[in-house]
Amino acid sequence: MKNIQLAVIPGDGIGKEVVPEALRVLDTLSEVHGGLKFDAIHYPWSSDYYAEHGEMMPKDGLDQLRQSDAIFLGAIGDPSIVADHISLNGLLLKIRREFEQVINVRPAKQIKGIVSPLGNPRDFDIMIVRENSEGEYSSSGGRVHNGEDEIVIQNAVFTKKGVSRVMEYAFQLAEQRSGHVTSATKSNGIVHSMPFWDEVFSEVSEKHSNIPTNSEHIDALSAFFVTKPHTLDVVVASNLFGDILSDLGAAIMGSIGIAPAGNINLNGKYPSMFEPVHGSAPDIYGKGIANPIGQIWTAKMMLDHFGEPEMGNVLLEAIESSLEAGIKTADIGGHSNTKEVTDAIIARIKK
Amino acid sequence: MKNIQLAVIPGDGIGKEVVPEALRVLDTLSEVHGGLKFDAIHYPWSSDYYAEHGEMMPKDGLDQLRQSDAIFLGAIGDPSIVADHISLNGLLLKIRREFEQVINVRPAKQIKGIVSPLGNPRDFDIMIVRENSEGEYSSSGGRVHNGEDEIVIQNAVFTKKGVSRVMEYAFQLAEQRSGHVTSATKSNGIVHSMPFWDEVFSEVSEKHSNIPTNSEHIDALSAFFVTKPHTLDVVVASNLFGDILSDLGAAIMGSIGIAPAGNINLNGKYPSMFEPVHGSAPDIYGKGIANPIGQIWTAKMMLDHFGEPEMGNVLLEAIESSLEAGIKTADIGGHSNTKEVTDAIIARIKK
Ligand SMILES: CC(C)[C@H](C(=O)O)[C@@H](O)C(=O)O
Ligand SMILES: CC(C)[C@H](C(=O)O)[C@@H](O)C(=O)O
Repeated sequence: MKNIQLAVIPGDGIGKEVVPEALRVLDTLSEVHGGLKFDAIHYPWSSDYYAEHGEMMPKDGLDQLRQSDAIFLGAIGDPSIVADHISLNGLLLKIRREFEQVINVRPAKQIKGIVSPLGNPRDFDIMIVRENSEGEYSSSGGRVHNGEDEIVIQNAVFTKKGVSRVMEYAFQLAEQRSGHVTSATKSNGIVHSMPFWDEVFSEVSEKHSNIPTNSEHIDALSAFFVTKPHTLDVVVASNLFGDILSDLGAAIMGSIGIAPAGNINLNGKYPSMFEPVHGSAPDIYGKGIANPIGQIWTAKMMLDHFGEPEMGNVLLEAIESSLEAGIKTADIGGHSNTKEVTDAIIARIKK
Repeated sequence: MKNIQLAVIPGDGIGKEVVPEALRVLDTLSEVHGGLKFDAIHYPWSSDYYAEHGEMMPKDGLDQLRQSDAIFLGAIGDPSIVADHISLNGLLLKIRREFEQVINVRPAKQIKGIVSPLGNPRDFDIMIVRENSEGEYSSSGGRVHNGEDEIVIQNAVFTKKGVSRVMEYAFQLAEQRSGHVTSATKSNGIVHSMPFWDEVFSEVSEKHSNIPTNSEHIDALSAFFVTKPHTLDVVVASNLFGDILSDLGAAIMGSIGIAPAGNINLNGKYPSMFEPVHGSAPDIYGKGIANPIGQIWTAKMMLDHFGEPEMGNVLLEAIESSLEAGIKTADIGGHSNTKEVTDAIIARIKK
């Protein structure tokens, strides 16, 4: 049994409800199947923490996290306490940046037991590989203040290093999956960064000449998520385009409540961070009805990450089997609550 | 009968097939219903023109167009002859920019006779109002060339003038429709331009306090186009976000082949330009199977623009009725060709 030191940050809202459930599932998996055991250390950093301390995490917060093998995050943001850009930049985006989690991986896969808004052909299995450190999310820019003539500049910054490493990651993933890579571009309208993106894509794809590729403008590609998602495999995208495509991916899966994500540190210097795609959902927090599957599926990504895909598959099968038995939260058309869904998944793991 | 001087640019690929069909429909409408008559002057500017003359349109091209009341465009782009960024910047984007067509309006409306990939509840009717002159589509930016350390900067430029006028337009449209306005933002991740966008949205919405508003991040909003499009009415978006949302809108309508668009000049100095959302589709060009409805619906937008909504409605009803009779091109699951679809629409107008 390998022990994994896991820093757990439930965060805000439903994060506080679904994280403990996912940990219950992980514990059961370890008991039943061995392999990995997660030793959780909890950090109460959140908007509540901000209310008390005036910051989202302590000054030495990153140092406290640094020694862990991975970070398991719920959701961040409670606008009734602190503005989103402060809470996000003070915790979520700060960890992504400081821990050089330069890649964000987000599967969009139709699973058994959930009807996609596109009907239920159960035929798409996409991996969105999002650049997570630069591009359109840059703090460079500013305003020229003169009233009615005000001009605001926002700089997007793309580097050879940043773009090639995310593409390299995408091609390696496609190799593992015997798949192909689609690049999200917009070089017909955005004339500096996107032609550069295309160039690097050509360069990296030459190194992987066995992998089929295509390049689609983000407008058309977004439409393909609706009209022909089954034709997509690995999709590599900039920070902003990956953000948009992964919410679209969650939408066609049937609910943002089930979509998982991993923020990957590549150089081994810092822990990677796993978090569901959904947010803190203040509107449903406290009712015990949040869908725990996003957080539980995120745990599966962590198992894959630590080289235990078999445990991960047991987990995904348990999720699918309990969904097929109709044990679902309201967001996917069911009547079960958070705990009942988790219990059903745990029962199936124990079988 | 009012005469409209119409500059017609069929352009490339299927543009050359669908534009004449839409003009046939307009002629019939004028004969049968009076109101407006379109006097078409054809301009052969296109990639073929480029092959012969080394430019997409003559030096005095804009001057030739200037006197017309409107421009009716098919589609631009034939990458086998000239790179997209050259053909687009040499014609489509040039006209949008030079003729100060600062707003791009694109309806996404479920119509009778077409099954949306989301099923067929026939319950969404969205107007996407896209900023068409600035924002992310800016020529400002460049490269620092040093090999592996190369850095590329892309500037997005937002002005008070540009942002407030597109929002003003959106609110006026919402007033006409007794609707509400949703703003597409991403101020939680993009920290200069998007908080500014939000500020201007608040300002303009205060002037229209009777119109309900909300603001959604582009990732979530893209998902809403899939999960709850019926909750949206007027959506106001930046150049890039509007581009993405309008392709998504076309996707949920059932085919990009039916979606129309108008590029609106607000100050009355130059003609507005009407063009379908689809491109030149070289893969199906020459087969006579292109869906003419995008171009024909674009003609309806032109009728609305010139104050003849009744003619526009006759046209839309004719489109819906022939679709309900199953007269459809292949992209929407039918077996009819371009001409048959047009004939069916014309026959219904004559009834
Ligand atoms: C061809 C391209 C530059 C254009 C755009 O992005 O504006 C197109 O996608 C559109 O939406 O009209
Ligand atoms: C909260 C926000 C800044 C974040 C992002 O855009 O990265 C979120 O949408 C996500 O995708 O994780």
